[in-house]
Amino acid sequence: MNIALTELPPEVQASVAETRERVAALHAELTRYELVVWTAGNVSERVPDSDLFVIKPSGVSYDALSAEMMVVCTLDGKKIDDGTPAHLQPSSDTAAHAYVYQHMSDVGGVVHTHSTYATAWAARGEPVPCALTMMADEFGGVIPVGPFALIGDDSIGRGIVETLQESRSPAVLMRNHGPFTIGKDARAAVKAAVMCEEVARTVHISRQLGAPDRIPQADIDRLYDRYQNVYGQRTTQ
Amino acid sequence: MNIALTELPPEVQASVAETRERVAALHAELTRYELVVWTAGNVSERVPDSDLFVIKPSGVSYDALSAEMMVVCTLDGKKIDDGTPAHLQPSSDTAAHAYVYQHMSDVGGVVHTHSTYATAWAARGEPVPCALTMMADEFGGVIPVGPFALIGDDSIGRGIVETLQESRSPAVLMRNHGPFTIGKDARAAVKAAVMCEEVARTVHISRQLGAPDRIPQADIDRLYDRYQNVYGQRTTQ
Amino acid sequence: MNIALTELPPEVQASVAETRERVAALHAELTRYELVVWTAGNVSERVPDSDLFVIKPSGVSYDALSAEMMVVCTLDGKKIDDGTPAHLQPSSDTAAHAYVYQHMSDVGGVVHTHSTYATAWAARGEPVPCALTMMADEFGGVIPVGPFALIGDDSIGRGIVETLQESRSPAVLMRNHGPFTIGKDARAAVKAAVMCEEVARTVHISRQLGAPDRIPQADIDRLYDRYQNVYGQRTTQ
Amino acid sequence: MNIALTELPPEVQASVAETRERVAALHAELTRYELVVWTAGNVSERVPDSDLFVIKPSGVSYDALSAEMMVVCTLDGKKIDDGTPAHLQPSSDTAAHAYVYQHMSDVGGVVHTHSTYATAWAARGEPVPCALTMMADEFGGVIPVGPFALIGDDSIGRGIVETLQESRSPAVLMRNHGPFTIGKDARAAVKAAVMCEEVARTVHISRQLGAPDRIPQADIDRLYDRYQNVYGQRTTQ
Repeated sequence: MNIALTELPPEVQASVAETRERVAALHAELTRYELVVWTAGNVSERVPDSDLFVIKPSGVSYDALSAEMMVVCTLDGKKIDDGTPAHLQPSSDTAAHAYVYQHMSDVGGVVHTHSTYATAWAARGEPVPCALTMMADEFGGVIPVGPFALIGDDSIGRGIVETLQESRSPAVLMRNHGPFTIGKDARAAVKAAVMCEEVARTVHISRQLGAPDRIPQADIDRLYDRYQNVYGQRTTQ
Repeated sequence: MNIALTELPPEVQASVAETRERVAALHAELTRYELVVWTAGNVSERVPDSDLFVIKPSGVSYDALSAEMMVVCTLDGKKIDDGTPAHLQPSSDTAAHAYVYQHMSDVGGVVHTHSTYATAWAARGEPVPCALTMMADEFGGVIPVGPFALIGDDSIGRGIVETLQESRSPAVLMRNHGPFTIGKDARAAVKAAVMCEEVARTVHISRQLGAPDRIPQADIDRLYDRYQNVYGQRTTQ
Repeated sequence: MNIALTELPPEVQASVAETRERVAALHAELTRYELVVWTAGNVSERVPDSDLFVIKPSGVSYDALSAEMMVVCTLDGKKIDDGTPAHLQPSSDTAAHAYVYQHMSDVGGVVHTHSTYATAWAARGEPVPCALTMMADEFGGVIPVGPFALIGDDSIGRGIVETLQESRSPAVLMRNHGPFTIGKDARAAVKAAVMCEEVARTVHISRQLGAPDRIPQADIDRLYDRYQNVYGQRTTQ
Repeated sequence: MNIALTELPPEVQASVAETRERVAALHAELTRYELVVWTAGNVSERVPDSDLFVIKPSGVSYDALSAEMMVVCTLDGKKIDDGTPAHLQPSSDTAAHAYVYQHMSDVGGVVHTHSTYATAWAARGEPVPCALTMMADEFGGVIPVGPFALIGDDSIGRGIVETLQESRSPAVLMRNHGPFTIGKDARAAVKAAVMCEEVARTVHISRQLGAPDRIPQADIDRLYDRYQNVYGQRTTQ
């Protein structure tokens, strides 16, 4: 019953290989922007034209990652027979990534970090107010907060999806936990993770000395519409 | 009607080539000092003895920049036939840079970032008070705030120019947006961007635990005059 | 009466050599995560199947460290005749490390830093409240504070051991001093030091703008139990 | 009347060459620990057995520094005929360094930075309270504040010397300006600059959420005496 990578059509195998390269390389952006420490963050990407996605193996440090070590999973989050050794298991956050791919068909990439400022807002359960033109462009308003949810079933995935479906933001701050971001592909989700931390930090710092000015909703809409039309649809950021 | 670089006088072509080298290289200072993330910041420089300027292409990451990719524009912000492929368009902030070159003839370089602490002051619409001798030297007083302005017409450029013309500062904090800085050339404008973030950060941190002492105006004037006489005129910093 | 490394059984000598390699290499994680400045932090590891441990030499900068320079001590913290030159003395914190190895038999690694945010909580004598799922996973609750203790006798070591024995946390914040962390081996203790600073920073920043939500004790227990069962016992983190 | 390096005794010339190497190399510690931006910080060292000192040239970026570019000055701060081109002038802070060498005969090295947290305390005119054992060890108590002084005469140098002579601290925070540190040689002064910023940052962050516990004076004295006896006299740190 277990799917073997070597038995899939050659074009899917090629696609998996390319996705593994992209996903492995994108983890370097998480360390470059200091969004993660130790092994606590992960990137995944849906394999085009398939029911598979590729994700970081659990517990492997960022320095040691290579394309060949990236784990291939079905959309229910189970590792296939992908050629990696048995001790390489998919990230402990795989169930949350899988839930997003199953329930948001236009999402091609998912990123999870515990980046400091985004997680600090999450620990207070407070959305980041829209006080920067960069936020209006990228997030279309506030960055919303998702519910407190324990690992172990689909409650994290469900919290992510329900919160994002009611928002224009590609980022959600899961309470007491940290941000999850989405995109049309893994690169777009990584960009959203970088921008999420950037605006969470800047608005935090601004508010330390007083209330930042919120941008009026009509101006947010104007900025967001322009930016999305120039750079493409929501998940294609 | 479109200007072609190859049809310009040889000395202008040589000048463009040198300017492209300088502008490409200076972007490394923005990442070194962590003034930018992803692709969100740009440097431009007026081509000496011409009505052209050189600016970063839109959406290209800092790692991937080379001199050949720098886009050449006329002073109304239109890309000329500069030998770069069509998908390389000038930065989305080009109109603001162009407006500055058109209206401030002594400005040879412009930089835009969303550096964290400067943008945090901008989000509250609050000028940075002059509490450091380094600020008196470099900025000649407070770093002023410019108006809230939407992208799409000349309102950002106009806000920059009007604010800077009433100040000795080579930096302006555009509300809810971020800093723009000017200089006699791109290097001076980059220095102003670095110093702007440095003093915005230091004064912010100082004020977290109480009110920093402002430097008396007469001392600011003395420091500024001395520094400008040693190191040259305003835009030659 | 002084023990000479060259007179120990060959398998112990081999074990010492491997431990020296690991301990020397792990100091690079302290600088990578900016937990230390100058020479102010140290890693040690118990040599398996022996009454020895290996620790950083005093006053040597991290750039200059090599495996051969790592000092070998008995469990009372005395340097043996280990082949290093006489001017290489064990870290001035060696007595505290030694006390831990003597009194906590399941501890195989100890780390001491003055990492900024952890030390900031220590300077107020305040434990870090458990407001992050990552804290529940790794620390099983608050990060506790140990007593104020002067260097020179066993009061630092005693303060560390007494505090850790009443807690699930592998990290203790010694008052006005800084964090000490333990693990089944040096790598686990380094991970605890990295995670200690990470959560100390995130919770600090969260609280700057309001009270972070504490995670209910039952949920902390559930998260901790799950994490420890997946990744092993307390000191095997 | 101008002294020429080539006419000095060979042993002094050799000593100058070695000092230049040390001073050039130590500037890398200022950038490594992010104590400086652009060109805004400098290290100097007294040439042993002479009335000369070596200092960074003005306006040269840290990447471009080499031993040959280090400027040699007499103790009144005048550049000698040291073989460097005329456009290399000693740092604009040279008068302050010179004043220290003239009035504190046991000082062999001086460092000046605008490091963020130390300067933030300086902008409020507030000494850093002694709340860390590391501060007691290195500074023997509070880090004191020196007077507001303008550049151009000996008032900065005088302010540094008068403040340091009344303190055990090798660092002084000059009001609205930044820290100056001293040591038995340049390396010790650089260490004091690194430690000054470290403790200024940690105590600042601690106080953001409440009052840090001050260490009782008797314990400060005990820690300081022990540390100085182990590692040598005040300026030999």
